[in-house]
Amino acid sequence: MSQRVSDEVVAMAMGELRSVHSSGRHGETLPYVHKVGSPPKQSLFQEIKHSVNETFFSDNPLKEFKDQTIQRKFVLGLRAVFPIFDWARGYNLKAFRSDFISGLTIASLCIPQDIAYAKLANLDPQYGLYTSFVAPLVYAFMGSSRDIAIGPVAVVSLLLGTMLSDEIKDYHSHEYLRLAFTATFFAGITQMALGVLRLGFLIDFLSHAAIVGFMAGAAITIALQQLKGLLGIKNFTKKTDIVSVMDSVWSSVHHGWNWQTIVIGVSFLAFLLITKYIAKRKKKLFWVAAIAPMTCVILSTLFVYITRADKKGVSIVSGGITSTVPLSVSTSYANQSARIGVVAGMVALTEAVAIGRTFAAMKDYSLDGNKEMVALGTMNIIGSLTSCYVATGSFSRSAVNYMAGCKTAVSNIVMALVVLLTLLVITPLFKYTPNAVLASIIIAAVLGLIDIQAVILLWKIDKFDFLACMGAFFGVIFKSVEIGLLIAVAISFAKILLQVTRPRTAVLGKLPGTSVYRNIQQYPNATQVPGMLIIRVDSAIYFSNSNYIKERILRWLTDEDTRRTGSELPEIHYLVVEMSPVTDIDTSGIHSLEELYKSLHKRDVMLVLANPGPIVMEKLHASNLTDLVGEHKIFLSVADAVATFGTKGAES
Amino acid sequence: MSQRVSDEVVAMAMGELRSVHSSGRHGETLPYVHKVGSPPKQSLFQEIKHSVNETFFSDNPLKEFKDQTIQRKFVLGLRAVFPIFDWARGYNLKAFRSDFISGLTIASLCIPQDIAYAKLANLDPQYGLYTSFVAPLVYAFMGSSRDIAIGPVAVVSLLLGTMLSDEIKDYHSHEYLRLAFTATFFAGITQMALGVLRLGFLIDFLSHAAIVGFMAGAAITIALQQLKGLLGIKNFTKKTDIVSVMDSVWSSVHHGWNWQTIVIGVSFLAFLLITKYIAKRKKKLFWVAAIAPMTCVILSTLFVYITRADKKGVSIVSGGITSTVPLSVSTSYANQSARIGVVAGMVALTEAVAIGRTFAAMKDYSLDGNKEMVALGTMNIIGSLTSCYVATGSFSRSAVNYMAGCKTAVSNIVMALVVLLTLLVITPLFKYTPNAVLASIIIAAVLGLIDIQAVILLWKIDKFDFLACMGAFFGVIFKSVEIGLLIAVAISFAKILLQVTRPRTAVLGKLPGTSVYRNIQQYPNATQVPGMLIIRVDSAIYFSNSNYIKERILRWLTDEDTRRTGSELPEIHYLVVEMSPVTDIDTSGIHSLEELYKSLHKRDVMLVLANPGPIVMEKLHASNLTDLVGEHKIFLSVADAVATFGTKGAES
Repeated sequence: MSQRVSDEVVAMAMGELRSVHSSGRHGETLPYVHKVGSPPKQSLFQEIKHSVNETFFSDNPLKEFKDQTIQRKFVLGLRAVFPIFDWARGYNLKAFRSDFISGLTIASLCIPQDIAYAKLANLDPQYGLYTSFVAPLVYAFMGSSRDIAIGPVAVVSLLLGTMLSDEIKDYHSHEYLRLAFTATFFAGITQMALGVLRLGFLIDFLSHAAIVGFMAGAAITIALQQLKGLLGIKNFTKKTDIVSVMDSVWSSVHHGWNWQTIVIGVSFLAFLLITKYIAKRKKKLFWVAAIAPMTCVILSTLFVYITRADKKGVSIVSGGITSTVPLSVSTSYANQSARIGVVAGMVALTEAVAIGRTFAAMKDYSLDGNKEMVALGTMNIIGSLTSCYVATGSFSRSAVNYMAGCKTAVSNIVMALVVLLTLLVITPLFKYTPNAVLASIIIAAVLGLIDIQAVILLWKIDKFDFLACMGAFFGVIFKSVEIGLLIAVAISFAKILLQVTRPRTAVLGKLPGTSVYRNIQQYPNATQVPGMLIIRVDSAIYFSNSNYIKERILRWLTDEDTRRTGSELPEIHYLVVEMSPVTDIDTSGIHSLEELYKSLHKRDVMLVLANPGPIVMEKLHASNLTDLVGEHKIFLSVADAVATFGTKGAES
Repeated sequence: MSQRVSDEVVAMAMGELRSVHSSGRHGETLPYVHKVGSPPKQSLFQEIKHSVNETFFSDNPLKEFKDQTIQRKFVLGLRAVFPIFDWARGYNLKAFRSDFISGLTIASLCIPQDIAYAKLANLDPQYGLYTSFVAPLVYAFMGSSRDIAIGPVAVVSLLLGTMLSDEIKDYHSHEYLRLAFTATFFAGITQMALGVLRLGFLIDFLSHAAIVGFMAGAAITIALQQLKGLLGIKNFTKKTDIVSVMDSVWSSVHHGWNWQTIVIGVSFLAFLLITKYIAKRKKKLFWVAAIAPMTCVILSTLFVYITRADKKGVSIVSGGITSTVPLSVSTSYANQSARIGVVAGMVALTEAVAIGRTFAAMKDYSLDGNKEMVALGTMNIIGSLTSCYVATGSFSRSAVNYMAGCKTAVSNIVMALVVLLTLLVITPLFKYTPNAVLASIIIAAVLGLIDIQAVILLWKIDKFDFLACMGAFFGVIFKSVEIGLLIAVAISFAKILLQVTRPRTAVLGKLPGTSVYRNIQQYPNATQVPGMLIIRVDSAIYFSNSNYIKERILRWLTDEDTRRTGSELPEIHYLVVEMSPVTDIDTSGIHSLEELYKSLHKRDVMLVLANPGPIVMEKLHASNLTDLVGEHKIFLSVADAVATFGTKGAES
């Protein structure tokens, strides 16, 4: 886009339409003539190229590759796929010190979370740790976010656990594991495909509001599930909805609760919540909350080991952390795992991209969504081949990473190495960790997913968003994560469809003392021009709304006629459609305009168009509608139309 | 909407924002102060009521019922459901004469078509005639279109036939009939439900372009199917795709064709096409084409009866028209019939509403889409209980009805009575009608569904529409009507999603000698203001596009900065976002604006907003974004913003 357009194009763009422009007050007509321009004509190829570019390559990812030697292009391509080659050259000891500290901090936070989250997915603890080792390493090489902390997260773990156990009931079978890894493989494939095909914008269809509700619902569902571990209940429902869970909890109140477990669980939960509160009040003490879960695990494990509380009914991780046969992707259950993988992959992606964008905006660096998806996808594909389940960016750990001062993805590498060390050295000790502590760690972690401020803001700003949020929320807690997700997506789509079927229209009036025409509802002192009705259509005119727009305009006219009946006001002879916001029109829209013209003609009202945009002008010409309407009735602005057709002034 | 708003509201609407308006040239500032208005505050209830009204009751259907006595309301309600009570009072002999003639004309056209179309649905001929008797009678009482001719139509018959025979292979079984009637019942229920729930706008989602392609594809598929009858082929494929059909035709060329049949079929087809051509050239001779099919049937039946050509291999309707056990809706196959019914009902509805709207626009009377749907639904429900299959408005017969001068739905009643007479008296004779003639009648009729002019127009006006059209077309002819329909719907939706994800943005410049700012691509002589970048966002900002819009604006800025590097042009310090077309913003949009503000702040560029609409203003206030951006940076118009922040003039 440049003003330096060749003279030829200018001449063409000047088009055939003429419109006398008046910019002064009181309808004074200026000698200067402006025409409603048509844009420089594009060939079909250019047109398609432009629209493909805007849709799939709106960030112009190949800009840097232009006019480079092949060798240089190869280097640039390598850097594009592995951003580590880009930033590693400038990496120094000072940055490493920051990354090392933040890496240690998130490692201490992630190890207990990994063990706990793996249980949400009905997997043995070591798979959580594997996931926190392989995935961050891969991401560090390919990802472009500097702050994200990679690993298993609560919501995806729960989603995966629910969907997997719908297919295979026996958690401890090899089949279940195989299904989990195959689903992870498909999740990776989904993410990678979205990135490679540049369809990353698809995740934008899950609206922020729906995510807020979904996350809060998932958090509550997860927290309620932890009552099993926290209260030491043995017979617990396998359903996740609030009714079944509360029923399980109450029905076991007299004989199923274990007081030793409750004491351990509740006291550590209190400890965790207090450290969280401290970290929230004093930002500098964020590390208190970060190392608290690890402290809990160590203290409680020691406590159980010394007191042998497990003999008194305190359930422990026990046989959990052992080495297993390496299992990987399998071709059986391909359909189920593909379905689960697509859903889990999309949710994981949404979370990772949201986190990445948040921190990128805070530090003002740019993040290529599609490239991120390729990185996340590769990470999960490699993960699925090395006994990992779906990994993504974690809200809580990324925030800690950021606050601990991480500079690059090296903090993820540090974390991965610490996790490896844990796996090799201290894992056997974890078998004495009481489940109650894991439950309290999960509860403390997921409470952070409930963003009440955001919900209040949704209510204040947009009621429909609030509805989407509540729909997803109640769907998750009363039915299941899948249903909640489905509701969230459905409401998001309904909103889009509503938006395109029922665009707004407004009656415009003249602001006194100016030549500016504005919505008379917003500006009550704007006055309508006698004998004219000026209507602004606030949307592109497409098949989905063209009929509505036509009928809405006719209804404005009927209403206005009714209002004027019996009053002194002159009858309406001109209907001006202000088309500034009409960025595009399709064949259905053209038909509707034609029908509008005919209907108005029968009512002895003249149709006048103001400020049609470039694409609209082109299509009006292509369809010969300009001839029907009359080119002299297409104006640069409403003011011009009024100056030409308006009877005397409408000044107040 | 009225300007007579109370003083209180005015005061409130004046809001807290102040903006100095300049309307003159050369940035001269006028003393008159206009503020960016906020609309009168609405309560939550009002807001919801308004949006429900616009979505479902945009035509204000209860307007007449307001302030009436209960008795009067009852009469009005009766009239609303049965428009016949409305227009019957003013009905006179002159109108009846017109209706009688047009009724006779469409009857002569519909009888042969009914028999032929019933075969498309794999049903015996009499069901086509039943459908042309019951359905028009019901419609005459409840429908509000004056020109539509009701009965079986080719496309719906084919669709029904294909879908039914996918479920039950044996056409002649009672089960097949039961399924057909049950599907018809569900089609009626679907149509009625859409009308009663006021969801009529859903059919707008099938775009005009997709319908053009779908219809053309269906026409070709139907015509190809008729080669069986026209060429007298015995072993014909049951598939409808062009490859299978042509294969069937060629493979039987040496032994399967019957020359007597071909002579009969081709000569009558030639006759029909010639009459069509005559009617097209001389509008007054439309009746020649209208009675031609009937003439064909009578002549050919007599010919076969006299020559006993059926003994020489000319296939005839034969055992077809007999009285059968009355069959009706059944509860078995409920699932399949519901699915078939919903699809057939929607397609039938689309066709009927399109026809109704076309003729209503031509005669300038209004048609209530939702009421029409209730009428069509009731008609099909009653039809399904009386051995009819899905009826709807026929393009060709409605056009003949219109040209024959019909005045009201009485022409449908006349037609129904003629059909009844036919059923009672002459039906047995039809058994000698050669199938080849029915084939030629179908071919001649469906060729009218191929609208090449419309396709050319689609290509000229909107390439994407053309793509949708071609997708549906090739889907139908190479796969099946269902696949074609699916492609049509999918492409229509893809277009909507594309529209909401990738809205347009434009850089604005000042038209010399005015204070009007326009797209510099459309108006190459518009000049940009030094030190300022003015960008118009051409869509509501929603979750589906908020991120794109933010990044697109930042990219405009980067591009502009790059362009200015090394040139004499001053750096950009102000980024004006012209928000006139931004009719709404949701929470994601607010977040994006906030992020945009922060990104710009880091780049030392000031964010300025021009002309936010009423709803946007309200939400900017609700989210306190006005405080962040600064209320003094929100202007009534771009001209005001430039007058305040622009450095010197940018006059060319």
